[in-house]
Amino acid sequence: MRMPPEALCDHLDASILRSLENFPTMDANARKQAQAHWDLKTKPQGSLGKLEALVLWMASVRGDSQLRSDAFHLGVFAGSHGVAEEGVSAFPPEVNGQMVENFRAGGAGINALCRAYDVSIQIVDTGVEAPTGNIAREPAMDEEGFARAFMLGWEAIPADAMLYAVGEMGIANTTVATALIAAILREQPAALTGVGSGIDAARRAHKTEVIARALELHREAIANPWELMRILGGRELAAMSGAILRATSARIPVMLDGLIATAAAAVAFEIQPAAVAFCQAGHRSAEPAHLGILARYGLEPLLDLQMRLGEGTGAAVAMGVMRCALQAYRDMATFDGAGVSRL
Amino acid sequence: MRMPPEALCDHLDASILRSLENFPTMDANARKQAQAHWDLKTKPQGSLGKLEALVLWMASVRGDSQLRSDAFHLGVFAGSHGVAEEGVSAFPPEVNGQMVENFRAGGAGINALCRAYDVSIQIVDTGVEAPTGNIAREPAMDEEGFARAFMLGWEAIPADAMLYAVGEMGIANTTVATALIAAILREQPAALTGVGSGIDAARRAHKTEVIARALELHREAIANPWELMRILGGRELAAMSGAILRATSARIPVMLDGLIATAAAAVAFEIQPAAVAFCQAGHRSAEPAHLGILARYGLEPLLDLQMRLGEGTGAAVAMGVMRCALQAYRDMATFDGAGVSRL
Repeated sequence: MRMPPEALCDHLDASILRSLENFPTMDANARKQAQAHWDLKTKPQGSLGKLEALVLWMASVRGDSQLRSDAFHLGVFAGSHGVAEEGVSAFPPEVNGQMVENFRAGGAGINALCRAYDVSIQIVDTGVEAPTGNIAREPAMDEEGFARAFMLGWEAIPADAMLYAVGEMGIANTTVATALIAAILREQPAALTGVGSGIDAARRAHKTEVIARALELHREAIANPWELMRILGGRELAAMSGAILRATSARIPVMLDGLIATAAAAVAFEIQPAAVAFCQAGHRSAEPAHLGILARYGLEPLLDLQMRLGEGTGAAVAMGVMRCALQAYRDMATFDGAGVSRL
Repeated sequence: MRMPPEALCDHLDASILRSLENFPTMDANARKQAQAHWDLKTKPQGSLGKLEALVLWMASVRGDSQLRSDAFHLGVFAGSHGVAEEGVSAFPPEVNGQMVENFRAGGAGINALCRAYDVSIQIVDTGVEAPTGNIAREPAMDEEGFARAFMLGWEAIPADAMLYAVGEMGIANTTVATALIAAILREQPAALTGVGSGIDAARRAHKTEVIARALELHREAIANPWELMRILGGRELAAMSGAILRATSARIPVMLDGLIATAAAAVAFEIQPAAVAFCQAGHRSAEPAHLGILARYGLEPLLDLQMRLGEGTGAAVAMGVMRCALQAYRDMATFDGAGVSRL
């Protein structure tokens, strides 16, 4: 585990750092029990493919082969980015607050998808009315601001969650996420920068240049992953890193969404590499930086539906797949129970 | 449209052939209206990717941009194959009847998946107690038997279905489906034959040889797709072809499952090529013949979850995706309604 610099430690609860140091490991025994349970079911062994694998993963994460298919939770973290003033997005920053209202009223894409799959939504406003610093000119947050955002995410996890996902909203946050990923992968932003919510080639070139400027300005300071998030990140991203680290440290499996959620997860993984095994990539983003950062941690997305909305929508569809996997695992008859001949 | 040979026409209702001759076309206007409806919603245009595309497809099929997300139906067609006596499967043929009981009791994989996504299941026993002819020696069905099976499928479609899928059960039906696909693609079975419900390399080589023998024996007779199904097919496959042609001719969109359902669909497409546009491939099967036959009709599977159970399970998961796509299409707020700034 990577420790934060001392100036940051002063603002973080000591219990958080203790939890991160005493991180759990995957439970091979629970996995074996879940496999045995699958193999009693009326189907050729392994024939439910990734549905079976998802359940085995969940059992290893939770340390228990008895799994429920309720209490799926998704947090939508909203933030506002100073770098939006550089003109990197197709939408104006006032959309942040408007979309928070839309989430609360149940009218956004993520609301509809979560209703379809009976996933509970929690909206976490990390401060949409107060943009962070513009990363092309200054650090996004000071120590206190970062710690507050991180702990907001840490505390957002419902204790009863069987499965957790993080989504987000924040105009210009693909710029920030791409900067974080470029720093972690030590790659030039040109090959990583995508169209975000939908920008043309000229604006994409400008966005690439803004990211390059931010990386150049902060190069010295960002070797530590905590500092990387504080300086090049944003409040909703810091909160998502906190939420992911809290969930995984408490043996709650995490379904990752696309680019932004994975950038927040990547910082979490740089802090505590053991968290990787507790996460599943839900959906392959259309953003070019996404596959590269997933590959660094050996994660493969479950779905590729060419979605690029964010909000957690890719993770929500993947949660729908998880739900039916659990239903099969729990409900299917056994060979003996149904009187079906085996191999 | 390809007409059946005269000896078969005598056994088929004339109304069926009339429906197939007067086949509908996709409705470009309904598609345009659905696109306009999506573009009012609070999200960047096109950012829900394939979820948006699925809804546009459904609107074109139905000729209506007003779409409901209820009344999803899935038919499970069970049959029994004489070719099982050649030892091509890992399971004994008595499993057919046992699994029909399991479907009826709600204990099979497809039951669990359909419960998860609120899909209605209908079990259609096309005659599990009486195997068809062994295709390696004789035609699978006579004219009357084929027509009865085909019409059983034709009549199985619920008139209120918003979306329909076909699944199946029949020990040795990957052998039959692979034979049908090899005949349509005019390819050697060696590259197309897979492990079905789970056989070893030696049995797979034997299965390939059985398929090659069946193709050689019936080579002359199978140029007509109706005859192809009668001679090399099976009752559940014939019923599925009938169901697919009935649904598509009535503007009910069809979600295809894996190898067997797609083989039945392929025969339907050879009979009436206009039916292709009314079908969506739900899931990529692990069987090697599947991608080749999909490519012949320009179909691309929505999901790849490495499932190889059959029963309609791949289509059922895809129906779950369709359900959330419709929920977003219907429920999401508009920019004006939610007071969110546009581009």
